[in-house]
Amino acid sequence: MALKSVLSAAQFTREDLDRILELSRQIELELQKRKTIPRLGDYVLATLFFEPSTRTRLSFEAAMHRLGGKVISSVGVQFSSLAKGETLYDTLKMVEAYSDICAIRHPVEGASQVAAANIKIPVINAGDGAGEHPTQALLDLYTIEKHCQISRNRLKIAFIGDIKYGRTIHSLIQLLWHYDCELVFISPPELRLGERYIRLLQENKVIYTETENIEALLQCDVAYVTRIQEERFADHREYERFKDRYIVNRSLVERAERKLIVMHPLPRLSEVSTDLDDHPAGVYFDQAQNGLYVRMALLLELLGVKL
Amino acid sequence: MALKSVLSAAQFTREDLDRILELSRQIELELQKRKTIPRLGDYVLATLFFEPSTRTRLSFEAAMHRLGGKVISSVGVQFSSLAKGETLYDTLKMVEAYSDICAIRHPVEGASQVAAANIKIPVINAGDGAGEHPTQALLDLYTIEKHCQISRNRLKIAFIGDIKYGRTIHSLIQLLWHYDCELVFISPPELRLGERYIRLLQENKVIYTETENIEALLQCDVAYVTRIQEERFADHREYERFKDRYIVNRSLVERAERKLIVMHPLPRLSEVSTDLDDHPAGVYFDQAQNGLYVRMALLLELLGVKL
Amino acid sequence: MALKSVLSAAQFTREDLDRILELSRQIELELQKRKTIPRLGDYVLATLFFEPSTRTRLSFEAAMHRLGGKVISSVGVQFSSLAKGETLYDTLKMVEAYSDICAIRHPVEGASQVAAANIKIPVINAGDGAGEHPTQALLDLYTIEKHCQISRNRLKIAFIGDIKYGRTIHSLIQLLWHYDCELVFISPPELRLGERYIRLLQENKVIYTETENIEALLQCDVAYVTRIQEERFADHREYERFKDRYIVNRSLVERAERKLIVMHPLPRLSEVSTDLDDHPAGVYFDQAQNGLYVRMALLLELLGVKL
Repeated sequence: MALKSVLSAAQFTREDLDRILELSRQIELELQKRKTIPRLGDYVLATLFFEPSTRTRLSFEAAMHRLGGKVISSVGVQFSSLAKGETLYDTLKMVEAYSDICAIRHPVEGASQVAAANIKIPVINAGDGAGEHPTQALLDLYTIEKHCQISRNRLKIAFIGDIKYGRTIHSLIQLLWHYDCELVFISPPELRLGERYIRLLQENKVIYTETENIEALLQCDVAYVTRIQEERFADHREYERFKDRYIVNRSLVERAERKLIVMHPLPRLSEVSTDLDDHPAGVYFDQAQNGLYVRMALLLELLGVKL
Repeated sequence: MALKSVLSAAQFTREDLDRILELSRQIELELQKRKTIPRLGDYVLATLFFEPSTRTRLSFEAAMHRLGGKVISSVGVQFSSLAKGETLYDTLKMVEAYSDICAIRHPVEGASQVAAANIKIPVINAGDGAGEHPTQALLDLYTIEKHCQISRNRLKIAFIGDIKYGRTIHSLIQLLWHYDCELVFISPPELRLGERYIRLLQENKVIYTETENIEALLQCDVAYVTRIQEERFADHREYERFKDRYIVNRSLVERAERKLIVMHPLPRLSEVSTDLDDHPAGVYFDQAQNGLYVRMALLLELLGVKL
Repeated sequence: MALKSVLSAAQFTREDLDRILELSRQIELELQKRKTIPRLGDYVLATLFFEPSTRTRLSFEAAMHRLGGKVISSVGVQFSSLAKGETLYDTLKMVEAYSDICAIRHPVEGASQVAAANIKIPVINAGDGAGEHPTQALLDLYTIEKHCQISRNRLKIAFIGDIKYGRTIHSLIQLLWHYDCELVFISPPELRLGERYIRLLQENKVIYTETENIEALLQCDVAYVTRIQEERFADHREYERFKDRYIVNRSLVERAERKLIVMHPLPRLSEVSTDLDDHPAGVYFDQAQNGLYVRMALLLELLGVKL
């Protein structure tokens, strides 16, 4: 059954994921033959970014253009909280009148849910505060499937860096438990996975381990790296210690015991070394490109239009 | 005779209004059958918003896209006054070179007139400071015609709230005097209609009454509500008194003696209760949607392209 | 051989210039017959403006739309220096994934070169700090060719105003030395051409003279005027003296000994009088319009698509 909206990584069944990954794959193949797949020539996408996120917005807009569709766009901070709830609601009713589908980025957790509950057109959550970023999780999953065939192999997937606050990690693990895989969380003690997600992993019977030692990634198939922020640490020296130890570079990767891919949601600072940019293990630019295919797939799926 | 530009509600003849309402109606009907009416595929609309107004801008851009046209857009505060007149003039000459029609929002009254006087492409005033907002007035009129057939019936139309500063009210009444209707202005004494508009009403032989009593809307066909702002009152208690009394909600509306519709230019605060959102009387979301049809009609009219 | 990117006025051979001018001319002719030349329907242009420049951005976007193409756009100051180099690099890799060609405006000199060196899609420098603005130089050249046939005649071209800091002047003179012409630099002593460009002129055997006297333009075919900024002068009275003397107006122009055209990159302040706006000598609005044709030509050239 086709999706109505994309709000949370938690909403997907394995069947949904199989269907989205397959459609994304077909789109990727098709775009090797031509630049545009004009299926949505009559449709208007509204991108409503209540906080700026150039990369995510341009990715959605490029996806719509590659499908031949139109885009109206608003970037701004006019409505900074759901305390101004009626205004958000009225804005959404207007968007409903003017467009066929909308992608919403909002600083407040749950804003997309509010939107989807109140308007008839499909809503895509393009990031809501500390909450979810489900399209990022889907493109991450697509990248893992493309390079390591998670649907057929038993993978070991490491997350490195800020496991506690990393929104993309929280969304991705909720997709991964539909697959037979093992998770390895590599972080400073300050940045370990929170109780809520630990409980979710246990409920879903996911095998996982936690460690401070970055060398644990050498036994993995995937290293998903995120940035560590200094302000998370009470003790500055602790930050310095981990900042220097948690750098994934070519010399580390080449000691891996299996074929390893390095992923990063971008933008990175120094946690992934540029000496991996043209190394086969460094797939993060491909990962960004995959966002195009996955978002095109979601636009088609939500609008009920066949490829 | 087709219009050259849309600058002021005062410019329209009854014949113009009839033509625009009819074209808007045909577009609304057509959009029930298909999503896009590709008549303007070769045309470029420039939306120049020297002050931000997301709703109005997106409405124009959606209108252009629904007609198959292209949009270039600038939102900013670079040119904040006509004191920088030459710069505005040079910007307009550039826009004339790059686009076929432009919609201008500017904080200074009369900016659109200056534009239209200096460039050859059609100009649409999308709001100029305390001045005019003629496309809002047209969509308001279309909404009244659609729900109450003002062209055939003798209507009683109430305006509630800030009659003194409400730009949309000032524009709309200049359209209404082409019709056989009676106006009722409901406001605190501080916010009564200004002398200038009183004189215009008298010159145009419009029957009107003024009152503080919101119950006067119970004898009307249309209640056009606007927001009351605290800073308009010298005495804070006065504001509190009217703020509480001037709320249009379901229980008030259901006491109406005739079929009553409630309009609002949006965004609203508490002056129209959300319990009217899905009540037949609450037509303000339809009103917003009508903006799409009316702006599409204006784009076709000004570019001289048939539906 | 088709160009790969447009980064600097210094990159062009005379053959490149001949080809671009001819293609621009054909586009101008074609646009007299129809509004759009739909050659790039499958292509996406990304306009990345790390500092705002409404005119230049809209010119590129209109050029793309007139060729039937799509545009994704980002305007912002997120990345204010190349000190944040990796972030710029990662942003560019994303743009490479989402679009077919990009136009970049960046406050740091050399930013476009960095971009072109790192991504596979064509890059157009839309202005980089104190550096280059090569598309402006090309549209300036096209304007001179259109009005004075620089490719066939020996022209005398005056530059008036801020010769020292005028970026558009520095770019244009690097195109002019491919032609048989003589340059006249008219400026206050404080704002004479810098050593670097003097040397370049000498190396390229360009005949030039320098003077403070604005009447020197009376013997020229072209007067290219730029704004003088007060902050360039240590002595305020010096500024006042030149500000008053360096005004090009109708009465001055009508004393010219030859047919003279007055150009200006816009926006102007008072240095070109508005009494030239509808005088045959005042070609600066046509110059702005020529930007459309030249940028359309560059988009076609860089994407390898025939007119």
